[in-house]
Amino acid sequence: MEKLEKYIKNAEDRLYEIFPAETLPQGDVIKAAKYSLSAGGKRIRPVLTQVFCEMCGADPVKALDTACAIEYMHTYSLIHDDLPCMDNDDLRRGKPSCHKAYGETTALLAGDALAILPFERIASSAAISPSAAVKCIRTLANLCGTAGMIGGQQIDTAMAGEELSGELLLSMYSMKTSALIKAACLCGVYCAESPEEERYVKYASEYAENLGIAFQIMDDILDVTGSTEELGKRTGNDAENDKHTYVRTYGLEKAEKAAKEYTEKALSALKAFDDSEFTEQLTRMLLGRKK
Amino acid sequence: MEKLEKYIKNAEDRLYEIFPAETLPQGDVIKAAKYSLSAGGKRIRPVLTQVFCEMCGADPVKALDTACAIEYMHTYSLIHDDLPCMDNDDLRRGKPSCHKAYGETTALLAGDALAILPFERIASSAAISPSAAVKCIRTLANLCGTAGMIGGQQIDTAMAGEELSGELLLSMYSMKTSALIKAACLCGVYCAESPEEERYVKYASEYAENLGIAFQIMDDILDVTGSTEELGKRTGNDAENDKHTYVRTYGLEKAEKAAKEYTEKALSALKAFDDSEFTEQLTRMLLGRKK
Repeated sequence: MEKLEKYIKNAEDRLYEIFPAETLPQGDVIKAAKYSLSAGGKRIRPVLTQVFCEMCGADPVKALDTACAIEYMHTYSLIHDDLPCMDNDDLRRGKPSCHKAYGETTALLAGDALAILPFERIASSAAISPSAAVKCIRTLANLCGTAGMIGGQQIDTAMAGEELSGELLLSMYSMKTSALIKAACLCGVYCAESPEEERYVKYASEYAENLGIAFQIMDDILDVTGSTEELGKRTGNDAENDKHTYVRTYGLEKAEKAAKEYTEKALSALKAFDDSEFTEQLTRMLLGRKK
Repeated sequence: MEKLEKYIKNAEDRLYEIFPAETLPQGDVIKAAKYSLSAGGKRIRPVLTQVFCEMCGADPVKALDTACAIEYMHTYSLIHDDLPCMDNDDLRRGKPSCHKAYGETTALLAGDALAILPFERIASSAAISPSAAVKCIRTLANLCGTAGMIGGQQIDTAMAGEELSGELLLSMYSMKTSALIKAACLCGVYCAESPEEERYVKYASEYAENLGIAFQIMDDILDVTGSTEELGKRTGNDAENDKHTYVRTYGLEKAEKAAKEYTEKALSALKAFDDSEFTEQLTRMLLGRKK
């Protein structure tokens, strides 16, 4: 998909421009942050930010700083997730995880830096009004905090091994995975500064909520059916860490069915936007992903 | 000082209002964050935010949300600083450090949450304009990132044991300690939204830069001369962790002289403000502190 490549390139071209020089005495923490940022993620979230900005009638370039900010936040969460006191993963996207490459202290600080940098990036963006920046920042911080992504990580790690209801499992997925995807989409809407913002926010939320859950269930499925080579990270990790997964609770078949259902719900929310063809294709592609 | 007590109470009364309910499934991470927030810090930074707002001619209440935000950021830095892969401190302000009380996973996530929450708090503040909020956020994030506080922590921990020039030591102090104090003071200036903002920014920066270094040198001195009971944290830690300190580089006498000199420089920057009497008193008190 040529359009997808363009969105990815837009984000990647501008991902590194806000960092101080690596030659500074504290250069290692800057190198570590860039190392993890450049480790070849799928860039789904910064693509979504641009796509939603465009679907709301604005030039997607308006959302580029914010798209980069979302990718910093995602990368922070991966670095800290891999730490020994969290999932203790040595591999991430086929490369040594950040603490394996740079040591635990530097990885901790690089993660911290990437959790704070999004707000500098959005607040420095010349492309959007202060009012739009404040909306993006409030939304991103709220969805990443204890009511969102961090709350989901807390349940995921601190309650590993405990009995979890199906309801709590879905609520954890919503926090752990949907929340940041929702931030990515909503920030795109806010950057567009459209008069129809309120309506767009409703449908972007609905899309992101369902896509996130579908995405997380796919992740569970791949941890069971994928290979380490294909995924670039160790598989079978969830079972080993006694993690709650949809597959473990409901079995593989039901998990595959649920992933499809949540994706259909996401697709139907897209109908509220005028030109959603590309986003529909992207969504179907994400469901069919092997990694 | 009655006025100081009032500023502290203002901040403490509103410090906890943005947190989700502790009864949520992820409640432990919320409890851990509040535990560290309530561990009895001196609240110097949120006091400075209010004080600078008032010195710039505005009601200090305008800066209250932002003052709370600064205290979240400070608390995040303490929680992560105490972690085993950083300073590995079991005690903080006379109580078990966050990871001793809640475990390493929850402490890591509580710190993460408190590094992100400041931005939600500032962006949600009804007391300031979006334009002032954006200035506060940009400044706070920049001064806490790899060019500021986190950069200083990186040098402090990753270069422990290495030879450090006097120049690099001061540059580390500027990043590790002055940066967040500067953010506290500048955010106060921005919240005031004064027409003389540019001039105030200059002198607030100069004040904070020097106060921060004086403050850090005092900390080094207390680590050598103070007792664990007085400080509420283990002393002698710096030498044990092979940390660079001003005392170690220059000796106790020169350190005490330098602390006084930097404080005098800070005091002289205050002369640019109309009514700086209280801030002068506060600054002298901070130099004389036993903890």
